[in-house]
Amino acid sequence: MLEVFENKKAVVLLSGGLDSSTLAYYVKNMGYDLYPISFDYGQKSRRELDASIKIGRSLGVKDHKFIKIDLKSIGGSALTSDIDVPKTGDLDNKRQEISDKKDIPITYVPARNTIFLSIALAYAEVIDADVIFYGANCIDYSGYPDCRPEFIDAFNNLAKWGTKKGVEGKTIEIEAPFLFYTKKDIVKTALDLGVPIEETWSCYDDGDEPCGRCDSCIIRQKAIDEVNAEIRNEKKNR
Amino acid sequence: MLEVFENKKAVVLLSGGLDSSTLAYYVKNMGYDLYPISFDYGQKSRRELDASIKIGRSLGVKDHKFIKIDLKSIGGSALTSDIDVPKTGDLDNKRQEISDKKDIPITYVPARNTIFLSIALAYAEVIDADVIFYGANCIDYSGYPDCRPEFIDAFNNLAKWGTKKGVEGKTIEIEAPFLFYTKKDIVKTALDLGVPIEETWSCYDDGDEPCGRCDSCIIRQKAIDEVNAEIRNEKKNR
Repeated sequence: MLEVFENKKAVVLLSGGLDSSTLAYYVKNMGYDLYPISFDYGQKSRRELDASIKIGRSLGVKDHKFIKIDLKSIGGSALTSDIDVPKTGDLDNKRQEISDKKDIPITYVPARNTIFLSIALAYAEVIDADVIFYGANCIDYSGYPDCRPEFIDAFNNLAKWGTKKGVEGKTIEIEAPFLFYTKKDIVKTALDLGVPIEETWSCYDDGDEPCGRCDSCIIRQKAIDEVNAEIRNEKKNR
Repeated sequence: MLEVFENKKAVVLLSGGLDSSTLAYYVKNMGYDLYPISFDYGQKSRRELDASIKIGRSLGVKDHKFIKIDLKSIGGSALTSDIDVPKTGDLDNKRQEISDKKDIPITYVPARNTIFLSIALAYAEVIDADVIFYGANCIDYSGYPDCRPEFIDAFNNLAKWGTKKGVEGKTIEIEAPFLFYTKKDIVKTALDLGVPIEETWSCYDDGDEPCGRCDSCIIRQKAIDEVNAEIRNEKKNR
């Protein structure tokens, strides 16, 4: 634990997925006082919210903020509307498509992360936290615009101009320590920190079990399989 | 009516106050198809929402979006919490204070306009509107950080990076045509455009009648009185 962050407050965006759950453990491990914030935004994946509650409890947080906001009524995404969650399967092709055609998948929820960060910004300002941790990742991801470093820079600039803290010359910094992690790096970090991975929920779809075929399930499982294979290999070579 | 904007969609942030109501009339007068969005964010001033409905109807809008978001649970402002709305009375002193001490009043709702613009951004992206109109004003105002030109520039930059439209090289522009208007200019515009000023609601407090003593009531009434005096004067001199 790093003493420098002890008793410092950190807001953490906690969806209950693998990345944000690992992030919450990571931030706690740095010594921060955790203030997780989770959103019921009308997502199909209701299990995600349950997962966020479980992870919050496993971290022993005192104050876990839940905010309800009906993005379903705005629509425009397979995660919130009647549009089916695509079961892509073919990840390598998909990643190529993203980089070639700048094709944003239908699981993109318009401006969702902008909205979440804005609300987290309000919360950070009220509880006087200087930092908001955000589990964005732009390596093994679905190609969402609001997971890129330029987006985070732009949000940090906005936070400076749009808050009382900014006027007073203080800052509320958005930090995304996993931005350039591969999904394998995240899985390894989760294992190092003792994250109860089985309690996290990454699937985009509804249902009692992960579908195993959406982007998010596939990216997650591939990384877990690879890390497991490495661990087996290391044991073998010892 | 300007043909250039005909059949173009515009999202308009409509609180039901004088500024945003005048803005909605102004945007309609430009020829745009209006898509107002209003927020029930737990504000004390419940009459504000009623006013937004009345103004929406008076404009004959087809689709008025209402979004509920509980900023009361985040708190930190006299507009949402148990903190009393200050009854300042002395406006000129107040304005000097703002510019001297960078003192943001307790009626500032942390990151509120960032949150509203973010949700409006999602809505604009889904309905394929290129523009969001926002009634910010930095002349006769309470000194809020999220009503300044730098804030709007920062949000425009964020909108570019955080949306699918931005990735595709298109834009969703935030426009604040009243940014440098005095409140008198806004009142005059309202009169020119036939805005039913009596239906708008500017008071920060709850209650069936405007309190007449909060910043918002005072700034509004002073401008209306001045414009009325000018009109009387003009009639006299004719």
